[in-house]
Amino acid sequence: MTVAIRNIGQLVTMEGPNRGRRGPEMNNIGLVEDGEIHLNHGFIVYAGPRSQAPSFTAEEEIDAEGGLMTPGLIDAHTHAVFAGNRADEFEERATGVSYQEIAARGGGILSTVRKTREATEVELFEQSKRHAEWMIRCGTTTAEVKSGYGLNLDTELKMLKVAGDLEITGLSIIRTFLGCHAVPPEGHTKQEYLDHVIHDMLPRVAKDCEYVDMFVEDKYFDARDARRYAEAARALGLGVRLHVDQMRDSGGAKLAAQLRAETAEHLEHASKEGLASLDQSSTVPILLPASVYGIRSERYPDYAFMKECALPVVLATDFNPGSSPTASLPFVMSLAVSKMGFTAAEALTACTINAAHSLKRATKIGSLEAGKAGDLVVWDAKDYRELPYWVGASLAKRVVKLGQTIWVQ
Amino acid sequence: MTVAIRNIGQLVTMEGPNRGRRGPEMNNIGLVEDGEIHLNHGFIVYAGPRSQAPSFTAEEEIDAEGGLMTPGLIDAHTHAVFAGNRADEFEERATGVSYQEIAARGGGILSTVRKTREATEVELFEQSKRHAEWMIRCGTTTAEVKSGYGLNLDTELKMLKVAGDLEITGLSIIRTFLGCHAVPPEGHTKQEYLDHVIHDMLPRVAKDCEYVDMFVEDKYFDARDARRYAEAARALGLGVRLHVDQMRDSGGAKLAAQLRAETAEHLEHASKEGLASLDQSSTVPILLPASVYGIRSERYPDYAFMKECALPVVLATDFNPGSSPTASLPFVMSLAVSKMGFTAAEALTACTINAAHSLKRATKIGSLEAGKAGDLVVWDAKDYRELPYWVGASLAKRVVKLGQTIWVQ
Repeated sequence: MTVAIRNIGQLVTMEGPNRGRRGPEMNNIGLVEDGEIHLNHGFIVYAGPRSQAPSFTAEEEIDAEGGLMTPGLIDAHTHAVFAGNRADEFEERATGVSYQEIAARGGGILSTVRKTREATEVELFEQSKRHAEWMIRCGTTTAEVKSGYGLNLDTELKMLKVAGDLEITGLSIIRTFLGCHAVPPEGHTKQEYLDHVIHDMLPRVAKDCEYVDMFVEDKYFDARDARRYAEAARALGLGVRLHVDQMRDSGGAKLAAQLRAETAEHLEHASKEGLASLDQSSTVPILLPASVYGIRSERYPDYAFMKECALPVVLATDFNPGSSPTASLPFVMSLAVSKMGFTAAEALTACTINAAHSLKRATKIGSLEAGKAGDLVVWDAKDYRELPYWVGASLAKRVVKLGQTIWVQ
Repeated sequence: MTVAIRNIGQLVTMEGPNRGRRGPEMNNIGLVEDGEIHLNHGFIVYAGPRSQAPSFTAEEEIDAEGGLMTPGLIDAHTHAVFAGNRADEFEERATGVSYQEIAARGGGILSTVRKTREATEVELFEQSKRHAEWMIRCGTTTAEVKSGYGLNLDTELKMLKVAGDLEITGLSIIRTFLGCHAVPPEGHTKQEYLDHVIHDMLPRVAKDCEYVDMFVEDKYFDARDARRYAEAARALGLGVRLHVDQMRDSGGAKLAAQLRAETAEHLEHASKEGLASLDQSSTVPILLPASVYGIRSERYPDYAFMKECALPVVLATDFNPGSSPTASLPFVMSLAVSKMGFTAAEALTACTINAAHSLKRATKIGSLEAGKAGDLVVWDAKDYRELPYWVGASLAKRVVKLGQTIWVQ
């Protein structure tokens, strides 16, 4: 199957080295005015200026109507598989009820654990499919999805199974086992639970995920736990992603670097020293501004300093029913520009090639160049700077996965 | 033409008195579980529980699939007719360039004035039609649209003409002449320009608008100007809406009440005294949190005090290319709940019946009850509290105007 996409007013290729872009490089987005793309069997054979395009007869012709085209967005941190929602708690918090009060009567994350455990696999799939479709409509073509609302083997396996099954929507899924999201409510000590995760759960989930993740925070898991967990995961061939420094600076960024974790995610309270340690490592920072918005904080990660350190920064939604009920990377880009001082180009880099790099997929996705996957979005816009600007609008007009249109407005 | 909408899982009727709801009343949203609606010639003949619905054979049957239905949203403050955009300035501001610097080199509002003057009527219509379509996709069925990017007679007339023509999209438009948005760049003094507006422009635009509006703020127009302008407008049968207390407290709320303006819009810096004066008047407060977000401020209007005063509060987008590039009332509702302490019910009331009341349309739109227009939205949600919660998603599944489906996802 051959596809030609013609009449692309502005083409963001992100062409360049297939590693994360760092610092000022994040503004090099490979902009082509008046572009064209040719695909064969789902992969790109040409992406560049129309004037230099070879002659190409395609079985399917798509007219981009002079609009903007970018690589499909990549959401490198989500919890998109969950049952129910917490719209009730969201409203209660607005009217002054505290997280603590909500948690004390069984709300918060444990209410999602309860609903996710109770849901059958089919129910969980149907609800999660709705989330995946929202992501696609916002221009996302690949998403990392974490488990972690099971906190027991059966439900964690069910979540990972459902996450994989979401690929039927057209979204590519990369799965992360987040068994260490919290200590479950059954009355284990943290130590007992961690032993159980490492000895009983990890070996069973390993074939159904590519990464593990742990919530490293006061009252959850600590540096020593993370070290044990990371070692056990590595021994099974799994990569390591870590939630760190979200609520306070507990040295999580530095820990992630020391453990050679693939990523350090959140970082709202990471110190300059912690961030600087990422510069000496291959650990990629993933920032989640929608979760800052969602918890009604104004404490965003220190992007200015990360830029100074030339870190290969990634932006993601953190889509989850508690702190970040959003499926929209364009909304995240708006927050990044409005609240953290990203340029529009940096924000787009952070949601494409840098996100691909953080997931070890940068040779396949994240940019539009010959040999890469035909994952792309045609937008109702002329200029990439419109993406973070028209906040709340749905600008994705056509979403294409491996050359197939998976959604059209 | 008869239409039946069946299988409505949750129906928000907003049934009740056709004036703005005040204070705690704003939580009375007329909730019906398992509802049904019957329409005849675009108007509602029945809206209520399925169990009490009379037998009704309809020419068109719509299945709401157990979802949420609300009245069509009403956006009572927009500047949705404009040419070009300011995505470039939005990004510059993120990287530390000040408003003043941007304005000094001809950016800001004057750049939109220039582009709007230069655009032909057809160009302006095509661009504004895109904005109207975005609004519809976010669930809006009626919008107030202000002129004010002309600042000369021809362009103001062109804007009002285009605003009216937008009704072809299905959106109902209520037009406001905002000739006093700023003093134009041609070198008039403020006094000369105001004389020109009052003597030459107002009589010519009067038949093309229903309201006038003035930007009452330091360096723009003052209380004395507002008084003259309001009197001249009243003499032509026009209503008065006022932009007040956006940048600092200049007593604008009290002024609006004294002038018996229909609305006092913005109010970010209004004093408690000013807000209390609205309580003694028929002047309706319209709050625009997306413009607070857009200018990167955290100074939201004092909703807690307005609630204490039981004011009939309205929420609107302020959709414009500078401070509020959003067409989405659900995004505004998210900000209202997250940043201002609205309940979801209060936010929905503020975007429906209270907005209708502020536009003197509450006997026709803003609630779903027999005799009113069949303007409604079927949402991809089960519970109205999901609307402000799933921020950035596009939950409107079907938008109906006078019984006609004008958009379906």
